[in-house]
Amino acid sequence: MNHRPEFSETDDVLSPQELQRIHAWWRAANYLSVGQIYLMDNPLLREPLLPEHVKPRLLGHWGTTPGLNFIYAHLNRAIMKRDLEMMYVMGPGHGGPGPVAAGWLEGTYSETYPNISQDLEGMKRLFKQFSFPGGIPSHVAPETPGSIHEGGELGYSLSHAYGAAFDNPELIVAAVVGDGEAETGPLAASWHSNKFMNPARDGAVLPILHLNGYKIANPTILARMDRDELDALLRGYGHIPHYVEGKDPEQMHQDFARTLDACLDEIREIMRRAREDGQIQRPRWPMIVLRSPKGWTGPAEVDGKKVEGSWRSHQVPFSAARENESHRQILETWLRSYRPEELFDESGAPVEEIRSLHPAGPRRMSATPHANGGILLRDLRMPDFRDYAVQVNKPGTGAVEATRVLGQMLRDVMAANMDNFRVFSPDENNSNRLAAVLEATDRTWNAHTVPEDDHLAPDGRVMEILSEHTCQGWLEGYLLTGRHGFFSCYEAFIHVVDSMFNQHAKWLDTSNSIPWRRPVASLNYLLTSHVWRQDHNGFSHQDPGFIDHVINKKSEVIRVYLPPDANTLLSVADHCLRSRQYVNVIVAGKQPQMQFLDMADAIVHCTKGIGIWDWASTDTDAEPDVVMGAAGDVPTMETLAAVEILRSRFPDLSIRVVNVVDLLRLQDEANNPHGLADREFDALFTTDKPVIFAYHGYPWLIHRLTYRRSNHGNFHVRGYKEEGTTTTPFDMCVLNQIDRFNLAIDVIDRVPRLQDISSHVREELKNKLIEHRQYIRTHGEDMPEIRNWQWSANPGAADQPTPQAP
Amino acid sequence: MNHRPEFSETDDVLSPQELQRIHAWWRAANYLSVGQIYLMDNPLLREPLLPEHVKPRLLGHWGTTPGLNFIYAHLNRAIMKRDLEMMYVMGPGHGGPGPVAAGWLEGTYSETYPNISQDLEGMKRLFKQFSFPGGIPSHVAPETPGSIHEGGELGYSLSHAYGAAFDNPELIVAAVVGDGEAETGPLAASWHSNKFMNPARDGAVLPILHLNGYKIANPTILARMDRDELDALLRGYGHIPHYVEGKDPEQMHQDFARTLDACLDEIREIMRRAREDGQIQRPRWPMIVLRSPKGWTGPAEVDGKKVEGSWRSHQVPFSAARENESHRQILETWLRSYRPEELFDESGAPVEEIRSLHPAGPRRMSATPHANGGILLRDLRMPDFRDYAVQVNKPGTGAVEATRVLGQMLRDVMAANMDNFRVFSPDENNSNRLAAVLEATDRTWNAHTVPEDDHLAPDGRVMEILSEHTCQGWLEGYLLTGRHGFFSCYEAFIHVVDSMFNQHAKWLDTSNSIPWRRPVASLNYLLTSHVWRQDHNGFSHQDPGFIDHVINKKSEVIRVYLPPDANTLLSVADHCLRSRQYVNVIVAGKQPQMQFLDMADAIVHCTKGIGIWDWASTDTDAEPDVVMGAAGDVPTMETLAAVEILRSRFPDLSIRVVNVVDLLRLQDEANNPHGLADREFDALFTTDKPVIFAYHGYPWLIHRLTYRRSNHGNFHVRGYKEEGTTTTPFDMCVLNQIDRFNLAIDVIDRVPRLQDISSHVREELKNKLIEHRQYIRTHGEDMPEIRNWQWSANPGAADQPTPQAP
Ligand SMILES: Cc1ncc(C[n+]2csc(CCOP(=O)(O)OP(=O)(O)O)c2C)c(N)n1
Ligand SMILES: Cc1ncc(C[n+]2csc(CCOP(=O)(O)OP(=O)(O)O)c2C)c(N)n1
Ligand SMILES: [Mg+2]
Ligand SMILES: [Mg+2]
Repeated sequence: MNHRPEFSETDDVLSPQELQRIHAWWRAANYLSVGQIYLMDNPLLREPLLPEHVKPRLLGHWGTTPGLNFIYAHLNRAIMKRDLEMMYVMGPGHGGPGPVAAGWLEGTYSETYPNISQDLEGMKRLFKQFSFPGGIPSHVAPETPGSIHEGGELGYSLSHAYGAAFDNPELIVAAVVGDGEAETGPLAASWHSNKFMNPARDGAVLPILHLNGYKIANPTILARMDRDELDALLRGYGHIPHYVEGKDPEQMHQDFARTLDACLDEIREIMRRAREDGQIQRPRWPMIVLRSPKGWTGPAEVDGKKVEGSWRSHQVPFSAARENESHRQILETWLRSYRPEELFDESGAPVEEIRSLHPAGPRRMSATPHANGGILLRDLRMPDFRDYAVQVNKPGTGAVEATRVLGQMLRDVMAANMDNFRVFSPDENNSNRLAAVLEATDRTWNAHTVPEDDHLAPDGRVMEILSEHTCQGWLEGYLLTGRHGFFSCYEAFIHVVDSMFNQHAKWLDTSNSIPWRRPVASLNYLLTSHVWRQDHNGFSHQDPGFIDHVINKKSEVIRVYLPPDANTLLSVADHCLRSRQYVNVIVAGKQPQMQFLDMADAIVHCTKGIGIWDWASTDTDAEPDVVMGAAGDVPTMETLAAVEILRSRFPDLSIRVVNVVDLLRLQDEANNPHGLADREFDALFTTDKPVIFAYHGYPWLIHRLTYRRSNHGNFHVRGYKEEGTTTTPFDMCVLNQIDRFNLAIDVIDRVPRLQDISSHVREELKNKLIEHRQYIRTHGEDMPEIRNWQWSANPGAADQPTPQAP
Repeated sequence: MNHRPEFSETDDVLSPQELQRIHAWWRAANYLSVGQIYLMDNPLLREPLLPEHVKPRLLGHWGTTPGLNFIYAHLNRAIMKRDLEMMYVMGPGHGGPGPVAAGWLEGTYSETYPNISQDLEGMKRLFKQFSFPGGIPSHVAPETPGSIHEGGELGYSLSHAYGAAFDNPELIVAAVVGDGEAETGPLAASWHSNKFMNPARDGAVLPILHLNGYKIANPTILARMDRDELDALLRGYGHIPHYVEGKDPEQMHQDFARTLDACLDEIREIMRRAREDGQIQRPRWPMIVLRSPKGWTGPAEVDGKKVEGSWRSHQVPFSAARENESHRQILETWLRSYRPEELFDESGAPVEEIRSLHPAGPRRMSATPHANGGILLRDLRMPDFRDYAVQVNKPGTGAVEATRVLGQMLRDVMAANMDNFRVFSPDENNSNRLAAVLEATDRTWNAHTVPEDDHLAPDGRVMEILSEHTCQGWLEGYLLTGRHGFFSCYEAFIHVVDSMFNQHAKWLDTSNSIPWRRPVASLNYLLTSHVWRQDHNGFSHQDPGFIDHVINKKSEVIRVYLPPDANTLLSVADHCLRSRQYVNVIVAGKQPQMQFLDMADAIVHCTKGIGIWDWASTDTDAEPDVVMGAAGDVPTMETLAAVEILRSRFPDLSIRVVNVVDLLRLQDEANNPHGLADREFDALFTTDKPVIFAYHGYPWLIHRLTYRRSNHGNFHVRGYKEEGTTTTPFDMCVLNQIDRFNLAIDVIDRVPRLQDISSHVREELKNKLIEHRQYIRTHGEDMPEIRNWQWSANPGAADQPTPQAP
């Protein structure tokens, strides 16, 4: 524990006084960190340390924390010296005690939580609350002022940092990357984010690779590569690495301060060149490699085993401090090594020397408004979505690519919000038919270009990298710092970010109960290239299960929409773009599909979220014989085609057609604030009639949502049941028995009064299925009657809907 | 389309004849690839190309394919020259036509699918079947001989390749990495796999970065970095890059052949040094960068737009070839440019020149047994799991870390299978209490070491990298090439590989219906550090939803086990390690937990998968008043504690305790081959009594599994409902109302005959919950009566179970 050096006057970058002060801050932050992990009383050790002062359950992580604190202290010095707008993202978010300590030293913590005052009593509460029932979590959670990054699931620090820096020209985001974290895929991919930075328009990210050598129980790869390899790797990522290595505090303080100054000078010069000289081609951005011991300043050894500088300091370095006298002695010596008596005054508040080492007000990293993005959030300027309406003269006709229509609206959203809206996609923007957005802006691209390139520019706002992780991380960082975004993705591959979605949903959920966190814009997903239309691909691209994944999270933070056509998609997208604090999942096809509702009807339908389609139903005067429900574009089409078959074969069959846009309306009010009341549900689905429900995804999800409903026993659901390959669109339906013929057979089999009169029709439908199979195997495409089918069951103009540009 | 160079004699590495032959193979493979994408008749263009020869739906990907074919041709030359055992992993698996063409040229395809003969008729079928209903998928799917890697979801080529190479000392895996694929997180992380390779024991991976410049609609980052940066990056990854760049076939053939020879020489020398000189420290492995145009040899331009060397050649470069005369002309010219008349004889078979350019029998990459791992699979030598049994004298007592007991068994499985079994974990092996495995072997580590390192060695067999993606990819590659493995992971973070699980499950499912694919060992997950015991962490670490995700896949390929204690865990693990073609998910806690069943009972219980626990039940003589079901260790404990409360308060209440180990037994036979028959289900759960079910995960999953059962309406399920933070273990249960008090209240509220006699008890239980809350907020740990609770409701010896080492 050699952290009490004799500071001498040198010609180093820090004056002796500065060095003293920075070191004092660091000691104070470390002291408060250890205190949080271990103590529940006697916070300033004004009495000898007794068993009852130590928490009975010791929970938390020490190893990463001194490094995080060290960097914090130095960033503060730089912020003050240069009047910077800075934000701190800590990859190893398990170092939660660090930023909490810093927030308390800066006063933010007590401003935010008056109960945790800047005095002895407050310090005691600060210690006790950590990882304690009713207290705060062990990570850099939403509860932590100044944080946008929990860091529990490792890998997202850099992408979050870049997301925060985009369109924030004055912001510098210091991002600590754990050397263990750096082994994760998402982190490894995110280094290349610098190819998407525009030094004229965006802020800067300063990555700090925290090479403390260890992760939980292993050394890290980056710490055990040859130095030339590490250097090559980081240069390969597009950075100029600066190394700060050692463990002697004096040397390390001087080195880090000097290095940080150099990096900030480089950043300033890069920005100046871009902003004054117009040189916006990609610079090589500086970064810092901090090689220091894990658990730095902690006990060197416990029970004869190395602790400081070893993986053994990852969590609580020794855990019998309450029961074991000698461990308690180690703890006390450790705590006293920081000389708390010099750091805190009589009242328990930080002494003046420390109080003065932080910037004021919102310049404090613990108080930056960027980390409470709702404060900075401005509403999007929205065009009127009605202007993009597709004309639908006759429902169930036409062939419109719904997402292409949406692209036109997104183009104009983009054009109206050129500094706080971005569109994200893993190289699928055009494939997903959102190419119109490129009329308003380019794709962000700061790497080399060639003359024939298509819409690439450093000031583009369509973010395309072939990494769902990086897209998601950028978007999260962008949203949490108060901006808006839209993520389009192939439906199957959105599972790549399942775990990231989890973490974001949890963040929103927790934030909802933190009064000082202001609502941020929703995270909007458009899932397209969906399971039913994987024309160029096959089984590996067929998975509608993201919805199942999403609805495990709190219903207060998630919504799922299945607009059946272009107009409903426009209405839904408009709603989502205006919403706050949700994750909105919109599933809509990109292939030409028939249209059902004109804009007026679409708005009504989307507002209700679920409704009877009168024009397709035949039950106007009495309870129906059967309810045919549908959710999703292809299921809706197949349902209507089945209805048409049934209407022609059994003219007096009374069919009610119910369409669902807002999926969670199916759930009961008790489980979901957006759920239909039982009364309303029964009014739609009856209490005793068969319901044949065609659903976009895995069928059991509908059962899961409706199991409490009175008529649940009569629900018969068709959906995707993992049958698929490269085949025709209609054959995908047939393989999963969600096609018109099977749906019609389902009705025949379930409606009692059809039992005796349907044998011939049933046979006819079975024959159709065989005919279909034969046909496609010969011709490779669907039968003309399928390909060209349009709704014609009710009278009306024969016009086809046509997309209508605004 | 300058691919008809005048080959001249030079002193290059390829003789003119070799050059000619390699070029002929490449032309043939390209011809067959284009044919597959476009043609359904007239395969050898022996008549002029007519509209009806062209498929009506053109589906597939051309852009990547010529590169894949080029490499294939050269690998074949090297295999023959050096008599190598090689395998080919193609990251851009959308280039499916390539390996299918190669397999056909090598004869494997016709051996595997006799209908696709090596003649004109066979070629016609080969063309027609591609991306055609009833035919084959567009990707390098299980249907493709020689493949272990579908490559639909991008990112796993390198980790699959390394998985294949481990413990295969004679195997060289050539792995093509798409330059787009390289942007993904999983791929970016997997470069560091070389730190886990032992050149004495393992084979080699030869990465070939396919720098064709584009992905779907964008340039790639790696293609647009400065050359020095790219070089630094690849060196930083631990490789020595060799560049082959250009588009002139003659030059490219010579360059690639020379480069491949050099790389294979380097690999041979690395292996020799390791095997003869004992130098096994990590070498810098060679790799190739192939920079060539996307869609190489395809049409240079279509409709005035650049196609060859552009993203426009990604899929089908022009799609109106059936309808549009001029497009059809382009197609015909393109096809004829390969001079098919020189490549195929009168019968339609490849000419001798081509027939001779491939190795024989299993040396053909399309026929390597490694890619049909079941052929090579040997059973594990298994110790008797009964030898590790924990002694349980009295059920519901003790405090054993179940996974630690499992670790002892895994240690001996490891010791007995030191060449075909590995254990994988993202830096959590010891945290998950599997440290005993390190008594049998070390952790694999070929980077630098320091003296105090803990069990790191180049010949270790515990694979730890902080990347769930890399662990999963390695394991998949290892299994698919015929070996065994075990993956332990924090429950919450297994979602990181949700999408990889999807792809593997789909692979298994498809393989099940491919007769020539032989069964491989199951992929075994141990999920621990589970939702109920996140002591050091909190909300971000609480997510039991992987089970929900898994059961969306075909029930023929997935199993889920929730052993409630150590002995059941042993029995389940033994079963899983012996199984084939499944993904087995085992969820078990690592914290000290009470034990319930001695080994004899555990075996009976696990064999049934679900059963009544007589010793805990009070319903022996009649139908019970209530069934208390449980699945999972913590829910089982809470259920028993609730039973004890109820038994003491209502001595004549008839309670049946049902425990579930094999979760999918709950599902009906119709939905799942492992499901209980309705009769059996009703015998356990009655048809009309209330069922209070305590489940480890999200409660609605139990509803989803049981919705067809007669008694479903009486199921009342408790589980994790996304309430959590850093708190005490029991408080986690209380927050989610799965604790003993709430469960007992549930019983009171649901059993009619308790209605009038339970008010005081109900109040008492409510008070307990308040007392609990007060207590933990003061003391930071659970009340002693909770912490120390053991089952004592029935008589028996008071002994505590103790772990018993074998
Ligand atoms: C995706 C993921 N996998 C596994 C873990 C479990 N885990 C928590 S901390 C840690 C080690 C982190 O090492 P490093 O990034 O070097 O942080 P530090 O050394 O600064 O503590 C691991 C593996 C995790 N949090 N996230
Ligand atoms: C994880 C994932 N995200 C997105 C896609 C959609 N996709 C299919 S091919 C492709 C481009 C691949 O580019 P590259 O790896 O360079 O392959 P090549 O150029 O050889 O075709 C993309 C983005 C995918 N298959 N997987
Ligand atoms: Mg570390
Ligand atoms: Mg490419």
